[in-house]
Amino acid sequence: MHILVSCDENYLPPLKTMLYSLYQQHRDQAIQVHLIHSDIAEELTEDLREYLKVMSEGYIELKQYPVGERFESAFVNRYYSIEMYYYLLAGDVLPDEIDRVIYIDPDCLVINPLNAFYNMDLVDHMMAAAQHSALPSAEINYVRLKTFADTEIESYFNAGFILMDLQAMRERTSAEAIFEYIQDAHLGALVLPDQDVLNVLYHDDILLIDEHEYNYDPRFYTLYLARDNSWSIERILRETKVIHYCGKHKPWNRIVGGQFTMLYKYFQIKAESIQYDS
Amino acid sequence: MHILVSCDENYLPPLKTMLYSLYQQHRDQAIQVHLIHSDIAEELTEDLREYLKVMSEGYIELKQYPVGERFESAFVNRYYSIEMYYYLLAGDVLPDEIDRVIYIDPDCLVINPLNAFYNMDLVDHMMAAAQHSALPSAEINYVRLKTFADTEIESYFNAGFILMDLQAMRERTSAEAIFEYIQDAHLGALVLPDQDVLNVLYHDDILLIDEHEYNYDPRFYTLYLARDNSWSIERILRETKVIHYCGKHKPWNRIVGGQFTMLYKYFQIKAESIQYDS
Repeated sequence: MHILVSCDENYLPPLKTMLYSLYQQHRDQAIQVHLIHSDIAEELTEDLREYLKVMSEGYIELKQYPVGERFESAFVNRYYSIEMYYYLLAGDVLPDEIDRVIYIDPDCLVINPLNAFYNMDLVDHMMAAAQHSALPSAEINYVRLKTFADTEIESYFNAGFILMDLQAMRERTSAEAIFEYIQDAHLGALVLPDQDVLNVLYHDDILLIDEHEYNYDPRFYTLYLARDNSWSIERILRETKVIHYCGKHKPWNRIVGGQFTMLYKYFQIKAESIQYDS
Repeated sequence: MHILVSCDENYLPPLKTMLYSLYQQHRDQAIQVHLIHSDIAEELTEDLREYLKVMSEGYIELKQYPVGERFESAFVNRYYSIEMYYYLLAGDVLPDEIDRVIYIDPDCLVINPLNAFYNMDLVDHMMAAAQHSALPSAEINYVRLKTFADTEIESYFNAGFILMDLQAMRERTSAEAIFEYIQDAHLGALVLPDQDVLNVLYHDDILLIDEHEYNYDPRFYTLYLARDNSWSIERILRETKVIHYCGKHKPWNRIVGGQFTMLYKYFQIKAESIQYDS
């Protein structure tokens, strides 16, 4: 299985936790983790490589792609960094022999196996991703994007967990198009710039998958349950593949999302307890 | 490592969860699980054996000891069953070549390795166990026991997690003494009969261990934290070996102890998701 990640140095600790949780769901299964980054120091990528090797007993292999200043001039706001765009370049950056990859944000936990999802039929779409329909800003984003983009979009996809058909991306997208969009975009509209890019440029080419199952936002547990009371804790633990600790406040810093923090902390402490030569 | 368990048929599902959690902390390590029971049907012990084998990839081996009617006439009250006494018989029932065992209640989760504890110096004590000092009834039990027992006891030990020196137990205890005590005991006093037996007969021979580390009662999270604010969720996940979901209400039936239910449910769902020939 090929997994795509991207972050700056600050996000390496949660990235380890996310990959630890991933491995727990895919023990004894070979996984290549592809890290696209700007300028993470070599000693830190080597530390990550050694960590992943020891943690997975050799099953996880790290491949890194330092893409340097390629997107340096792109707009970067608030607590977002330039690395947020890199998943969009996966088709360009990853070797041609890799034709599928799952992108996972470092603020996620993987709590069930991804194999069936990895092999799903994309029905000729380039990607599969979930919406966060409970997000109060979803409607606003939808309207906002419609006003400055020339296209009508029906859903606003969350970019935290995406299955990518890299062959299709190589055929249908280019780094140049993305770069141009970022340069031209109305700056005020770029509140979530990478997701805007994803949604404006590719919305027609993204297969919608269920957010409960693939991109569960624990801030909305009560709302999800109010809408559909079958989404109990038991069902989440049984069926949800990825819990995405979205938003500014992160479970490694403080209590967020009530009991979901406990689940995060469990993986975090276990991930941190791995003994290796660092 | 030798682990002692005891339950009736109703507790087989949580027993599986507890042993699943145990194995997660001791992967690739041989473990013998000794089950003392009354009359669990053979098909159910065979199911448990197969479950443990598949779940642990062969590392957990089940040994069962049906002790039948040996204690049948002993007092059994409320939601307790006769199996609650069986751990006290470990010295008699387990083979002579086994000299140490850890008894673990089926309503526990093991969240960190037990190896150092298993090999600890018992300083000539027969057992090691923790108190539940936050329990409002601890004082009451203490007084109650003093009034009818001839001995002064300084601590009231919780019987959910006990390290046992079986050689010492073989030399210093007997099934007959335990049986006599149960017969003679003032019935009204036997609110927690097995713990009463443990405390009245053996209190001088039990080494006190830290309840935060070895027998954490999640009902008292807030109280523990008020007494010693270092016992954060992080510290519990890092240092606590056993979370003991004490009391009448169990996390497999309902929400108890807030965020600790999430931790339990995670292990329960994972334990239940093991595919084996049942």
